[in-house]
Amino acid sequence: MLISFKNDYSEGCHPRILEALGRNNLVQQDGYGADIYSEKAKSLIKQKCDAADADVHFVSGGTQANMLVIAASLRAHESVISTTTGHIYTNETGAIEATGHKINAVEGVDGKLTPSHIQQVLDGHSNKPHVLKQRMVYISNSTEMGTIYTKSELKALYTFCQANDLYLFMDGARLGSALMAADNDLTLADIASYTDVFWIGGTKNGALLGEAIVITNSVLQEDFAYHIKQRGAMLAKGMVLGTQFLELFKDNLYFDLASYANEQAMRIKQALIGYGCIFWAETTTNQLFPILSNDQIAQLSQKFAFHHWKKIDENHSAIRLITSWATTDERVEHFIKALKKV
Amino acid sequence: MLISFKNDYSEGCHPRILEALGRNNLVQQDGYGADIYSEKAKSLIKQKCDAADADVHFVSGGTQANMLVIAASLRAHESVISTTTGHIYTNETGAIEATGHKINAVEGVDGKLTPSHIQQVLDGHSNKPHVLKQRMVYISNSTEMGTIYTKSELKALYTFCQANDLYLFMDGARLGSALMAADNDLTLADIASYTDVFWIGGTKNGALLGEAIVITNSVLQEDFAYHIKQRGAMLAKGMVLGTQFLELFKDNLYFDLASYANEQAMRIKQALIGYGCIFWAETTTNQLFPILSNDQIAQLSQKFAFHHWKKIDENHSAIRLITSWATTDERVEHFIKALKKV
Amino acid sequence: MLISFKNDYSEGCHPRILEALGRNNLVQQDGYGADIYSEKAKSLIKQKCDAADADVHFVSGGTQANMLVIAASLRAHESVISTTTGHIYTNETGAIEATGHKINAVEGVDGKLTPSHIQQVLDGHSNKPHVLKQRMVYISNSTEMGTIYTKSELKALYTFCQANDLYLFMDGARLGSALMAADNDLTLADIASYTDVFWIGGTKNGALLGEAIVITNSVLQEDFAYHIKQRGAMLAKGMVLGTQFLELFKDNLYFDLASYANEQAMRIKQALIGYGCIFWAETTTNQLFPILSNDQIAQLSQKFAFHHWKKIDENHSAIRLITSWATTDERVEHFIKALKKV
Amino acid sequence: MLISFKNDYSEGCHPRILEALGRNNLVQQDGYGADIYSEKAKSLIKQKCDAADADVHFVSGGTQANMLVIAASLRAHESVISTTTGHIYTNETGAIEATGHKINAVEGVDGKLTPSHIQQVLDGHSNKPHVLKQRMVYISNSTEMGTIYTKSELKALYTFCQANDLYLFMDGARLGSALMAADNDLTLADIASYTDVFWIGGTKNGALLGEAIVITNSVLQEDFAYHIKQRGAMLAKGMVLGTQFLELFKDNLYFDLASYANEQAMRIKQALIGYGCIFWAETTTNQLFPILSNDQIAQLSQKFAFHHWKKIDENHSAIRLITSWATTDERVEHFIKALKKV
Repeated sequence: MLISFKNDYSEGCHPRILEALGRNNLVQQDGYGADIYSEKAKSLIKQKCDAADADVHFVSGGTQANMLVIAASLRAHESVISTTTGHIYTNETGAIEATGHKINAVEGVDGKLTPSHIQQVLDGHSNKPHVLKQRMVYISNSTEMGTIYTKSELKALYTFCQANDLYLFMDGARLGSALMAADNDLTLADIASYTDVFWIGGTKNGALLGEAIVITNSVLQEDFAYHIKQRGAMLAKGMVLGTQFLELFKDNLYFDLASYANEQAMRIKQALIGYGCIFWAETTTNQLFPILSNDQIAQLSQKFAFHHWKKIDENHSAIRLITSWATTDERVEHFIKALKKV
Repeated sequence: MLISFKNDYSEGCHPRILEALGRNNLVQQDGYGADIYSEKAKSLIKQKCDAADADVHFVSGGTQANMLVIAASLRAHESVISTTTGHIYTNETGAIEATGHKINAVEGVDGKLTPSHIQQVLDGHSNKPHVLKQRMVYISNSTEMGTIYTKSELKALYTFCQANDLYLFMDGARLGSALMAADNDLTLADIASYTDVFWIGGTKNGALLGEAIVITNSVLQEDFAYHIKQRGAMLAKGMVLGTQFLELFKDNLYFDLASYANEQAMRIKQALIGYGCIFWAETTTNQLFPILSNDQIAQLSQKFAFHHWKKIDENHSAIRLITSWATTDERVEHFIKALKKV
Repeated sequence: MLISFKNDYSEGCHPRILEALGRNNLVQQDGYGADIYSEKAKSLIKQKCDAADADVHFVSGGTQANMLVIAASLRAHESVISTTTGHIYTNETGAIEATGHKINAVEGVDGKLTPSHIQQVLDGHSNKPHVLKQRMVYISNSTEMGTIYTKSELKALYTFCQANDLYLFMDGARLGSALMAADNDLTLADIASYTDVFWIGGTKNGALLGEAIVITNSVLQEDFAYHIKQRGAMLAKGMVLGTQFLELFKDNLYFDLASYANEQAMRIKQALIGYGCIFWAETTTNQLFPILSNDQIAQLSQKFAFHHWKKIDENHSAIRLITSWATTDERVEHFIKALKKV
Repeated sequence: MLISFKNDYSEGCHPRILEALGRNNLVQQDGYGADIYSEKAKSLIKQKCDAADADVHFVSGGTQANMLVIAASLRAHESVISTTTGHIYTNETGAIEATGHKINAVEGVDGKLTPSHIQQVLDGHSNKPHVLKQRMVYISNSTEMGTIYTKSELKALYTFCQANDLYLFMDGARLGSALMAADNDLTLADIASYTDVFWIGGTKNGALLGEAIVITNSVLQEDFAYHIKQRGAMLAKGMVLGTQFLELFKDNLYFDLASYANEQAMRIKQALIGYGCIFWAETTTNQLFPILSNDQIAQLSQKFAFHHWKKIDENHSAIRLITSWATTDERVEHFIKALKKV
């Protein structure tokens, strides 16, 4: 059996989550999110976002959250801007287009967008009405390359979006990891301030399943529940999601788990640096993209599972290593030892 | 706190499910349904359906299962036939239409369709190509009225569908309850034989969440996984679903839970009959629709939660009572006692 | 060769239309509706509607106009209300649903809707968010049964719609015929006042093709041109439509053609009444629905083409007869003579 | 008034078309394409394509033809490949995505695709089912850059598509011009042989409006008429389209008009070459993309209308000049004289 560094959803959930589910298991609750755990969890999240007027909704997964937010926000002739590395552009089987909306992709930098990237897209769509109207910008934090947005970067994007009648939407599948990165200067409250809508990923940070969509722009709040139901995203037993987010946010658990995952990644990173390794992307979160020789990769593959990410040249490739709240010290040490050998 | 007979998803899950989730919790698995529990659960289900060539897929909820199956099966100009009481027609916020497909609704009998109902729809769509081409028939078992299909009814429907180039699709949100009804003569294997695709509901029969889609028609099997991902229905931690269905089907748990729910309903039914009550629909499953006076309803509402289903006349309404695997004897007795009083 | 009373689009266009197309044929114009004829025609129509702030757009056909208006007006979770006889519900191959929107159909009276019909639909959709949000009401004038709305009926509908946050949309495929009916009391300006959007049919009233969409509600005006292009409805040679509507509206041609069609229908109607015929629908427009014996129908069918509309009993059916601007006196007389014989 | 070289749809139609419309104008015909002119025109086109088993359908415009063909051919999880310069990717307001399908765009060469471009897209979509399944390849001939496919290029593409289970679809908005180019070696019959579906553009080659979709693959033929109606593309007066294509194809008119347009373009091209001009794209059709200095462009703009196509450097841009069947010798000479001056 290989030890897996393939992703941050290889295990179930943090034990406290299972305990919480057990605790509430036989207490009768109303369905479809009208249970008391969901209510409490929503309150807590709004509090931590310092956004009393926000709306919070729990759904099962990331693709679902993305397609829901985008389809609910756009009229038929409106499109969303993303980097070419954006999850919605590359890894969601056309989920966004299936709701009728084109993604205008632009090559970003380090998996991130800046105002000039967005301006470039807008400039290419001047031949109205033969082109779509851009209405939303999609970003992820941390990105699909493991990088993070700084406060000034996010602020600049938001200001630009506001000036250009664009909604700013952040995919937070790995938001915990971004916020706990050593060089991060953003808070949940900053994100609530400088986006129109974002989501806080639970699946990749300790939950069995679940993402929390936080809508701060009141225009986008209107009628959102209808869309959840229409896209098949409203669980009958909404308490399954509410209970988990309540557990994650009732103290610091959500952040502690992300910190832990980051620390494990950084331990591996230090080891790699120690061996002179260079990286395809410079990351401080729970994703690493070391460039190794094909031979080294082959040797590591005998004991560890990970994704081959990008061919660099004939003899080298970048691999992707991901740690999580469940990555034990033992596994990290195993890997570091194996590195030493190769 | 009222005792709720509102639905069969008021509680969490059967304790064995939680135990199973705990047991597997820290064992690393591949994501997106490629875990060993999902594989084993699929095998078991195919075995119990006596359908070795079937494909089984796990998703989170019923609306999701319905929209997935229908959107994956139909081309743009094709429609699906349902009774006017069908869940897809009345309670899914236009989820089917949002994928581009019209539902041709026809009034059925007791929540069920017969070949003559379908023929009626086909006859009304002769002005080709100004009308849609009907390509699928949607039924539920048990139905939204708590009734069930007999073997001969299902066989007749399937034969008719085969002769008319229509796929037959059964929504099994409450399939357990249907199969365990005293007057049922269908088996899982019959259903696999006499439909093209159906699903086995977990959410309403002991699981935290989850439905198992069983596709027996090989045409409909093709590429189904793409659709699951595209509609946001593919959980990263697929083992959450696999583990639950494995537990439900590794012995008789799924059927035992449904039997129990039916029995509790029948106890209440007998009590109601004893008091001379009549019913809006004649049911042998876990749903009851007794007709009571408004005064009786008001009194019961002080201690119990249930849905007011249908106004019958100025002074009477049908209410809906639902039992589940979690309905205790104590609650049933409370209710029967309260009935006695009113 | 049978003489056809099947519809009002059996011939090409009024000769003045062809002349106008010839006159402008070689004058260079900008494409996509930015030609001077379109501009002038739009101005004239706004003037005749007494609606200076309206937006006018020309498209090719009725189904196109309907799907465009509805898809441009509704968000994903919103639906449109129609009678069960509405063209969008029965004869457009699911064009509306293909844009993602459900039609909530209700049985009307004489092909028409009243506030109580709409209220009935709203009442059936109280279980939010498990149902769609009704946001638009679709009516036709004249209706698919040849009947027309009176001013007070339209006003009542519009008032109700305003009070219930519903857009009122009128399909005017046969608006000319409605406005020229002997018992009509509506003007174009009334219709502009008491709807949010409507269209004036050209195809069935003398044009080769073309319908003029008039949007008076400023919310619905926004970005409409994008939708025209997106739905494939923007002709490169927009002048083909502009020229025709300019010719139809530069004097009274549009109304004269409709009057003429109505008169021919009324001549046939008088003859039918003279023979003691009764009608499936009471009409004063260019559609007649006489009930005849099967034998009479068979005899007439030897010389005339028309639609068999509705079986009334074993021995009788209603047929549909339609006249147009191109129905000659000679053909009318032929038909009346044939009636006499049968 | 400027002389326009902006496009090939600035004028109405060839005089013979108007005459034909006049000739048939008052003869009663069945609607929706069931008229005798449409029937005859379809026969002729199949004959000229040497494709007796093909299906031919007439629609109003190019975006409509594209979205129809693509939406009718693909299941929900399938996508279409195009160059980044493809009309569907850049100029159709997301019409394809609005039907639910993503366009996988790849940079081609001279506006064209080769098997290696397609392979590149397929290689980028190996992570099934998290990516779309490519099922169709879209090309245009002539392309949006005025270039054309050779027989061997088309054959190679088709062979590759066959081997990879991809439909090959050719947009023929300017097919006449392509087929009449001096260096063309393709015939209509070749195109019918080496594609699954294509369309013959009428709007840009002498018709008032209209494109003829030719479907040779029998799988794609099935039920196509439903889609035409569903997308609002079925004209009530189908004879308007049938009559025009009958006139264009009953002798050599369609090809003569295209030849003429090409010749006028080549006269201008020769003059430009004479002045040492270079071109952004090397074309032999009715589109020219000369690179001129900003000053030259400004001077020409005072007398002529054309599109500024592409900025080349600070001082130079490519403009687009388009000729048509209606471009008079006089206008060509005017332009050549003006060129001489600048």
